[in-house]
Amino acid sequence: MTGRANRIAVDAMGGDHAPEQIVRGAIRATRELGVAVTLVGKRDAIEPLLRGAPAGTGDIEIVDAGQVVDMGEHPANAVRSKPDSSVVRACKMVADGQAAAAVSAGNSGATLAAALLRVKRIPGVARPAIGTSFPTRTGHCFMLDVGANSDSKPEWLAQFAVMGDIYAQSMLGIEEPRVGLLSNGEEAEKGSELVRATRPLLEALPLRFAGNVEGKDIFRGQVDVVVTDGFTGNIALKMAEGVGEFLFASISRAARSTRMGTLGGALLKPSLRPLRDTMDYRKTGGALMLGVNGEVVIAHGRSDAEAIVNAIRVAAEAVARDISGGIAKALKTSGGSAGDGEETEPGNSTSTGAVKTPWRVAESSSGNA
Amino acid sequence: MTGRANRIAVDAMGGDHAPEQIVRGAIRATRELGVAVTLVGKRDAIEPLLRGAPAGTGDIEIVDAGQVVDMGEHPANAVRSKPDSSVVRACKMVADGQAAAAVSAGNSGATLAAALLRVKRIPGVARPAIGTSFPTRTGHCFMLDVGANSDSKPEWLAQFAVMGDIYAQSMLGIEEPRVGLLSNGEEAEKGSELVRATRPLLEALPLRFAGNVEGKDIFRGQVDVVVTDGFTGNIALKMAEGVGEFLFASISRAARSTRMGTLGGALLKPSLRPLRDTMDYRKTGGALMLGVNGEVVIAHGRSDAEAIVNAIRVAAEAVARDISGGIAKALKTSGGSAGDGEETEPGNSTSTGAVKTPWRVAESSSGNA
Repeated sequence: MTGRANRIAVDAMGGDHAPEQIVRGAIRATRELGVAVTLVGKRDAIEPLLRGAPAGTGDIEIVDAGQVVDMGEHPANAVRSKPDSSVVRACKMVADGQAAAAVSAGNSGATLAAALLRVKRIPGVARPAIGTSFPTRTGHCFMLDVGANSDSKPEWLAQFAVMGDIYAQSMLGIEEPRVGLLSNGEEAEKGSELVRATRPLLEALPLRFAGNVEGKDIFRGQVDVVVTDGFTGNIALKMAEGVGEFLFASISRAARSTRMGTLGGALLKPSLRPLRDTMDYRKTGGALMLGVNGEVVIAHGRSDAEAIVNAIRVAAEAVARDISGGIAKALKTSGGSAGDGEETEPGNSTSTGAVKTPWRVAESSSGNA
Repeated sequence: MTGRANRIAVDAMGGDHAPEQIVRGAIRATRELGVAVTLVGKRDAIEPLLRGAPAGTGDIEIVDAGQVVDMGEHPANAVRSKPDSSVVRACKMVADGQAAAAVSAGNSGATLAAALLRVKRIPGVARPAIGTSFPTRTGHCFMLDVGANSDSKPEWLAQFAVMGDIYAQSMLGIEEPRVGLLSNGEEAEKGSELVRATRPLLEALPLRFAGNVEGKDIFRGQVDVVVTDGFTGNIALKMAEGVGEFLFASISRAARSTRMGTLGGALLKPSLRPLRDTMDYRKTGGALMLGVNGEVVIAHGRSDAEAIVNAIRVAAEAVARDISGGIAKALKTSGGSAGDGEETEPGNSTSTGAVKTPWRVAESSSGNA
């Protein structure tokens, strides 16, 4: 995986531990994954860190970007007012074909906004979504949207289902992914207004719709993809993270509370490590943005070098499996041409006017971003 | 805790393991908790089970109810068409002052509907909510609504905050509970439309509003009460249950996977039991319904005898602390009289017309139940 087309552009300035941990992670990624990386950010800050790179470090270069979007900044405003920021430049590299993917551990709203502004939506996509995988008893379950859109429409959720279906086929290797709709009960008549309006759209899609699912169904492995709006999905993700963190901390405390427990904990620890890793963002990498013309990975704000290696791994896999191309193709195949790959601007409704499948959303309804 | 006023009416026919486990749990509750119980249901089914009650069984009686609401039935329809059903009769006992609380492990929507129909809302309450406690690093956090209302309004959430505040004061013994609003990020500008509209209402309330919280904040013990709509709350609850179930099952599997792990697991097990219990509905009892004129506990559909004992314990505690009375008083104190305890019918807007505090919702907006 070398050459410009397969480079991963990494925002060197984004995240709580930038640039040190980001640069360190990028160096490791070139060695461990064999990927080519471009570090985007302040050359003066990056260069000294690169000097310490060990022998065997792979293809790594710097693209100078003079501005930085801070964690607390208003995403859309920051992205608009800082065209030379590292996150915007990283996304621009994807748009310009200089990189196949962008990775940022910075302000996640800004990464989203930069991707929308520069990488741009795949024609016909109303709203990109952010997806992430949960471990289950039988493998993994991919949930989307986990935070790109705070308020959603049924048609957007139907597109999320199509995008998640492609993801599960390509990245999880599941031929006919079972797609569920997150709800407060399995019964068809249950759910919020949004869920009740979405369900018939999912039933009409050419995919394996498995009905409404609850949290326990996800972890029991009853579906491969679970569709929800970005608000609910984010709550679900953070609850799962919170419970996981709480339980592992409590187990550690319990193990230390008695002599027998301490011994038991020590003996059990090696067996628990793989499980713990499945719940650890440092091991699982970042969340993938679906619905834009390239691969964009949103890494955890607290990412250390290891988390960055794994976020780059997710990006490289998404590039290798051509997730964004697969989504564009699925949209085209199922709904007629939505403009042959040209960039769609908000308000430009001509390219998707002919689309008829329920999950194709006319641009007119997506212009109010 | 004896006498008619403090009796707990238990729906003997509700739940996957009714009536056997319910009756067994009720018998145990009279012995272990010293509460008086009325079993409501088919006398012919209950009496034989009571005959086996051991010596020392306390005050327990049967009220015959000829109908049963099944798990799959449409809640509101079932409750309306089956006035002699065990769940409706149990709620009617509370309404008539023959019991202080009702407990059901049956169709939870039907329990909710029966409580609304018979026990009735506290005057001024727009929508009752269902609340449940999560274990945290420092104690407990009470979340509401976890399922009474699939679509909610900001004013309802503001009332949930007031009810949760009373609950945490009375049941958790916290003088000034910290009340959080569940959102996809702590920043004030984040959140769904509902969350953004609710936040200023919570800021205006005479309680300790701690801002927006995420799942991890809950488990870290940063708030005592967390307010959310019933759809999101239900998703959050089920995700937490799902992760807990998944992790404990995975730990058991990991412990069995190696010889060292097996030994470690065996040694650690006693230390883990208290933690496991905090996540187990059988130990924690049921969810309390807040906002009706009496205590109503919704127990888990899979409740066994032990779960029923603990659901009855929650009901008895709610009675002892007079949660419903406390809520009625809080509503009256903060907002002027909303009708001195008389029953409020949907559409009767006269009694709350004078209410001015932001969390008092005029009856007119709550008539479209």
